[in-house]
Amino acid sequence: MNRQQLFEQIQKKRSFLCVGLDTDVLKIPKHLTGEEDPVFSFNKEIVDATAAFSVAYKPNLAFYESLGWQGWQSLEKTVKYIREKYPEIFLIADAKRGDIGNTSSLYARAFFEKLDFDAVTVAPYMGEDSVKPFMNYANKWVILLALTSNKGAFDFQFIRDDKTGNPLFETVLTTSQNWGTAENLMYVVGATKAEKLKEIREITPDHFLLVPGVGAQGGSLQEVAKNGMNSQCGLLVNSSRGIIYASANEDFAERAGEAARTIQQEMDMLLKEKGL
Amino acid sequence: MNRQQLFEQIQKKRSFLCVGLDTDVLKIPKHLTGEEDPVFSFNKEIVDATAAFSVAYKPNLAFYESLGWQGWQSLEKTVKYIREKYPEIFLIADAKRGDIGNTSSLYARAFFEKLDFDAVTVAPYMGEDSVKPFMNYANKWVILLALTSNKGAFDFQFIRDDKTGNPLFETVLTTSQNWGTAENLMYVVGATKAEKLKEIREITPDHFLLVPGVGAQGGSLQEVAKNGMNSQCGLLVNSSRGIIYASANEDFAERAGEAARTIQQEMDMLLKEKGL
Repeated sequence: MNRQQLFEQIQKKRSFLCVGLDTDVLKIPKHLTGEEDPVFSFNKEIVDATAAFSVAYKPNLAFYESLGWQGWQSLEKTVKYIREKYPEIFLIADAKRGDIGNTSSLYARAFFEKLDFDAVTVAPYMGEDSVKPFMNYANKWVILLALTSNKGAFDFQFIRDDKTGNPLFETVLTTSQNWGTAENLMYVVGATKAEKLKEIREITPDHFLLVPGVGAQGGSLQEVAKNGMNSQCGLLVNSSRGIIYASANEDFAERAGEAARTIQQEMDMLLKEKGL
Repeated sequence: MNRQQLFEQIQKKRSFLCVGLDTDVLKIPKHLTGEEDPVFSFNKEIVDATAAFSVAYKPNLAFYESLGWQGWQSLEKTVKYIREKYPEIFLIADAKRGDIGNTSSLYARAFFEKLDFDAVTVAPYMGEDSVKPFMNYANKWVILLALTSNKGAFDFQFIRDDKTGNPLFETVLTTSQNWGTAENLMYVVGATKAEKLKEIREITPDHFLLVPGVGAQGGSLQEVAKNGMNSQCGLLVNSSRGIIYASANEDFAERAGEAARTIQQEMDMLLKEKGL
C-alpha cells in the first residue's frame, strides 16, 4: 500500500486507528480456549468487530512466538484472514527486527513474502545495512524505532551527540532519511513523549508516524494529534489492551468494537479540526 | 548453564567456537531437499559433525522465520535434538529482540520456556526495561548488542556523548552493567572491530563476549584472542558460512567437521598461549 492509498483509507473511514493484536493466550476469554486455534479465533472476532473503525492492525510478534511454531501458525492465519476479508487494511508486523544486511534480507523475506505484511518495525542500532533490505519491496514499509514509549527510552535515546548537540533519536530521524523516503519509511514515536512530536514534525514533516502508548500506557490522543498531524494525517495511533481486552467475557468482541468506535469518533473530530 | 560450566566446557573441548546455524534453505545440498524437513536434516548432520569441536550453537532466527511456521518448527526440532544429544552445549537464539517490558517478557518466554535456549541476543535501543525481563531466569543469559560487525555499526554506535565523550557502544556497556552481572549478561562485539576489544576489556573485564565476523566477514581470530581473552577465556567466537557451507555437496557435513576442527586446533593454541 502506498502513502496516498493509506491517506484515502483514513479519509474514508474517518480514522487513523491501528489495533494492536497483542493476543496473550492467557487473557483470551474462557469460552474460546476449547477452539482448535484460540488465538486465531480471538483475532478473527476482534478484527470483524473493529475493522470498520480501524485502518491498520499490528500483531506484536512476541505474543505469537511465546507459543512457538503454533503461534506463528496463528499469526499466518490471522494475516491471511485480514488480507482476504479486509484488503484495504494496512498490516504491520511489530517485530522490531534488525541484523546485518544479508540477514535482514531474510527477515524481509519472512514478513513481506512468506507473510504479506505492508510494514515491519525495525530497530536502528545496527545502522543502514540492517534497515535497507526491508526497502527493496515496492509499496512496503520500514517503521523505524525513533523515540519509544517506554521508560527505557531515557537510557540511550536522549544521549546528545558531542558534535551536533542532537539527542540520539533525532540523529536516527535525520540519518535514516537518507536511506528511504516518506513513501517507504515511517517512524515509531511513543504517545507518552507527545510533547516531542512538534520537534519531530519539524525534522520529518511528511513521514507517517506510528504512535503507540495511547490508553494503557498513558498517552493522550488529543495531544498526539495537535502536535503530530500533518496535511495527510501522517499518524497511525495504536491501541492494544484498551480495545482487545475491553471485556474478558463472551461479549469481548462487541466491547472491542465499541472501544474502537469511541476512538474512531474522537479521531473523526480531530481530522475535522485539521480540515481533513 | 552458568559461567563456570561454560568455562569448564571450553577447557575440556579446547575450543571457544560457536557454530552459527544460519541455514538458508536455498543453500542446502540438493540431496537433502527431498527430505521431510531439509533444514532440520541439514542442521542435524552439521551438529553431529561439529559438536566435538564446538561449545555453542547459534541459530539466527531470520533464516527460520523466512520459512514461516515451518521454519519455526525446524528450529524447535533442532534445539530439541541438540539438548537431548549434546546437553553440554550452550545454545544461543540469535534473535536481536527487544521491546517494552511486558512484551520482552513474552520474548523471554518464547526463547527460554517454549524453546530451551541458554541465551538470546538483544538490541539495546529501548533500554533497561526491554532487556531485564530476559534476566529473570536462573542460568539464562542476555547477549546485548554493543559493537556489531557490520558497516552500519558506524552510523550510531560511535556517536560520542556530549557529557562523557564516550561512544554509544561504550555507554551501552557501562549502563547495562547496572542491569545484570557477568553471570547473566554477555556482549556482542564484532571481530571486524577487534582493535576495540582492548578498550572493551577494560570496561568489562569479566563478561563473556560473543564475537561474530571471523571468516566470511574478514575478522581475525588471533587478534580477537590477543585483545579479548580473559582468565576464563571470556570469548565465544562465531563462525557460520565458513563451516556450514564448507561444501555444497554430499560431503558437506564431513567438510564442516574439518572446518570446525581447524578452528578448534587454532583455538587450542590460543588458549595454551594464555595458559588456559
